[in-house]
Amino acid sequence: MKEVVLGIDIGGTNTKFGFVDRSGTLLSEHSISTNVHASVESFLDALHENIEKNISALGEVVELIGIGVGAPNGNYYDGTIENAPNLRWKGSVNFVKLLQSYYDIPAVLTNDANAAAIGEMRFGGAQEMKNFIVITLGTGLGSGIVVNGELIYGHDGMAGELGHTLVNVNGRYCACGKRGCLETYVSATGIKRTIYKLLADHNGTSELNGVSFNDLSAELITEAAKNGDKIALEAFEYTGRILGMKLSDAVAHTSPEAIFLFGGLTKAEDFIFEPTKRYMEENLLYVYRNKVKLLPSGLQDKNAAVLGAAALAWQELEKSKDNVY
Amino acid sequence: MKEVVLGIDIGGTNTKFGFVDRSGTLLSEHSISTNVHASVESFLDALHENIEKNISALGEVVELIGIGVGAPNGNYYDGTIENAPNLRWKGSVNFVKLLQSYYDIPAVLTNDANAAAIGEMRFGGAQEMKNFIVITLGTGLGSGIVVNGELIYGHDGMAGELGHTLVNVNGRYCACGKRGCLETYVSATGIKRTIYKLLADHNGTSELNGVSFNDLSAELITEAAKNGDKIALEAFEYTGRILGMKLSDAVAHTSPEAIFLFGGLTKAEDFIFEPTKRYMEENLLYVYRNKVKLLPSGLQDKNAAVLGAAALAWQELEKSKDNVY
Repeated sequence: MKEVVLGIDIGGTNTKFGFVDRSGTLLSEHSISTNVHASVESFLDALHENIEKNISALGEVVELIGIGVGAPNGNYYDGTIENAPNLRWKGSVNFVKLLQSYYDIPAVLTNDANAAAIGEMRFGGAQEMKNFIVITLGTGLGSGIVVNGELIYGHDGMAGELGHTLVNVNGRYCACGKRGCLETYVSATGIKRTIYKLLADHNGTSELNGVSFNDLSAELITEAAKNGDKIALEAFEYTGRILGMKLSDAVAHTSPEAIFLFGGLTKAEDFIFEPTKRYMEENLLYVYRNKVKLLPSGLQDKNAAVLGAAALAWQELEKSKDNVY
Repeated sequence: MKEVVLGIDIGGTNTKFGFVDRSGTLLSEHSISTNVHASVESFLDALHENIEKNISALGEVVELIGIGVGAPNGNYYDGTIENAPNLRWKGSVNFVKLLQSYYDIPAVLTNDANAAAIGEMRFGGAQEMKNFIVITLGTGLGSGIVVNGELIYGHDGMAGELGHTLVNVNGRYCACGKRGCLETYVSATGIKRTIYKLLADHNGTSELNGVSFNDLSAELITEAAKNGDKIALEAFEYTGRILGMKLSDAVAHTSPEAIFLFGGLTKAEDFIFEPTKRYMEENLLYVYRNKVKLLPSGLQDKNAAVLGAAALAWQELEKSKDNVY
């Protein structure tokens, strides 16, 4: 019988989950809708039913020995999801406790970007590293910071929220209620906003002039940049400048060996990596210059969120083993 | 025979040192000039002579079992002082190795603010804390970040340089070669620069109009604020605004339980603490609000730099003991 863990990635629209063995092989992956469920109880019923169906459909006999969950505003210490703006369940939801009423096995939860960082350390590009940062560029900007081989949870279990560090106190409105947060500039949504700002400011032609905000995407902007579209190229330069400056601040905090970028925006490759690296180096204190690698995630084409949640579960199981022996 | 360690705090002008027992009692403290010595070898000769003289002058018989050093640009991993702008010894100086040619006992070095953080944890206000930050406000702004009960050194041994995070890319010139670094605004020198900026901008009266830049000090500015001087009050508001905003960024990185402020500027008490706290809270992501304490250092009236260096030595001696048993 093969031991597996369940990795669950809760998103605002869909929740993905999959069964992952100790070596990081994803045996099967599945998805259910998150936002059709008004209550977390209804969501968990649906999730449980789907897990059971798919665990029996696996080609081999497996034993489910642990669960890892990545969730927006996930609190590692309490196992709670706290006031996540893009989920329908409000307040502080003790997701781990609710989950354990279905599965009486070790379960652990953290935010999605923290899970991605643990996935990077266990199965991705950071397997030999002790100090690194993972930045996830999706609808928002998430981050997980690893120091001395351990993810930083901080005093309250919610460390690593670089998406809400300050770029401009009078800047763009953020879903969190503040203004000028990093993720309003640097994320798939952020670069769309930048394109619209540039289209408003400039009086020229751009192939993006015919695209609505809703239809605009990181992929379309990357395509336009490849075609030499000046607005798209300037948007990447602007995005890289802001990300590079804030990454230089991050280096001054924890001095990582590498910073990994993950998510759709990184498929723009050099359009985003080159200016980010250039502005990061320019803004680094001299003692840190030419030391910090800026790398694409080693899980880029895999289901990193599910693998990350599973990696968290494996890590936790090994920790509790350490406690026994 | 009483076991003691030697704590050494190397500053640009003077170097302080003292003998400290395991409980944090400073048996005696001394000072020699740093900047009269053009070479580190000449400095070490003088330091050694002074240590020997003062160790025999101690009232009791002691055994020196370790040395801790706090130094600008100190690299913990290598034991080196790297291109410190305010020291006359240029390049990378392997201070620990040189020191051990005089004393063949465990010796360890880090930057002065990191040493202050270890001192805070062992002998000061953070004795029960696992996650906190110490900010030292002197000529510049130093910082030491503790996570899970351990100081963050990072990949290269030089983590925790919040003084060189970015406030304004077109801002004030910094001694490090960059512009707009936090310490050009928030430090004893930074607030002097702010006073001069405000005196230039305003067309009013201030008791500080008669003071030259060289004669101006954090103490004089505090005195003026106590007298209700509007320029001095505005300078504290401005300084607290910038420090508060950057501390909110720091919280988003490592989510500390408390942030300790240390140094002359903190003697201004509420003039600096109140606006710093207010702007920090205002800029915090909602999940962190009303959780992070802003406190004066518990070593405020003691020789924190020497105690910190000594705490580092004690910590290192206990670590190596752990390795033996």
